[in-house]
Amino acid sequence: MSLSPELSARLKWNADGLIAAVVVDHATSDVLMMAWMNDDALDSTLTTRRGTYWSRSRQELWVKGETSGHVQHVREVRVDCDGDTVLVRVDQTGPACHTGTHTCFDTGERLLLADESA
Amino acid sequence: MSLSPELSARLKWNADGLIAAVVVDHATSDVLMMAWMNDDALDSTLTTRRGTYWSRSRQELWVKGETSGHVQHVREVRVDCDGDTVLVRVDQTGPACHTGTHTCFDTGERLLLADESA
Repeated sequence: MSLSPELSARLKWNADGLIAAVVVDHATSDVLMMAWMNDDALDSTLTTRRGTYWSRSRQELWVKGETSGHVQHVREVRVDCDGDTVLVRVDQTGPACHTGTHTCFDTGERLLLADESA
Repeated sequence: MSLSPELSARLKWNADGLIAAVVVDHATSDVLMMAWMNDDALDSTLTTRRGTYWSRSRQELWVKGETSGHVQHVREVRVDCDGDTVLVRVDQTGPACHTGTHTCFDTGERLLLADESA
């Protein structure tokens, strides 16, 4: 699989051939996670509607939830103004974070600055 | 300015000394933009509550809205499970995108995959 040359040319791949992917819960608009996509990961995400990323640590294509069952059905994909980030809206099955939390930003110790009016 | 050694050690800076910053509209939960922070940018964001980033193109600290007036008052900052991304919730004055749109993901040509149920 690979992206159309037209789409690939619109995107600004980094030195490793990746773009950033911000993943949002379609129902709640919570930001679930940040991940990376190469050409194949984006193509697979667009054609299968399964959230698919590039694992920088394992250096392999990674279909989210393939082992955990915590899959993502992709509702919408948008690219930003300068073409180096995609915004992926998904229906998330189970927790998005590998630590078991709903998002990768949950839990108290992940709070660096609290809302002053809360 | 610089971050406390304890906080800096919790974060996973990339080879350029940066972490990703996903910026969200506090009122609407819209993802406004993706940007990058170095140590000073994060420290400044946490201490001044003004959204402050590292411009990779200009290679300088960038207080969002300093010239345009489209400033960000920072409500909350969270870090993700593996410490390489922060989630910044802001009150955005004016459009967040330098093209004049509310977010960097707006406008039709930025839509790569549409919601099938829409």
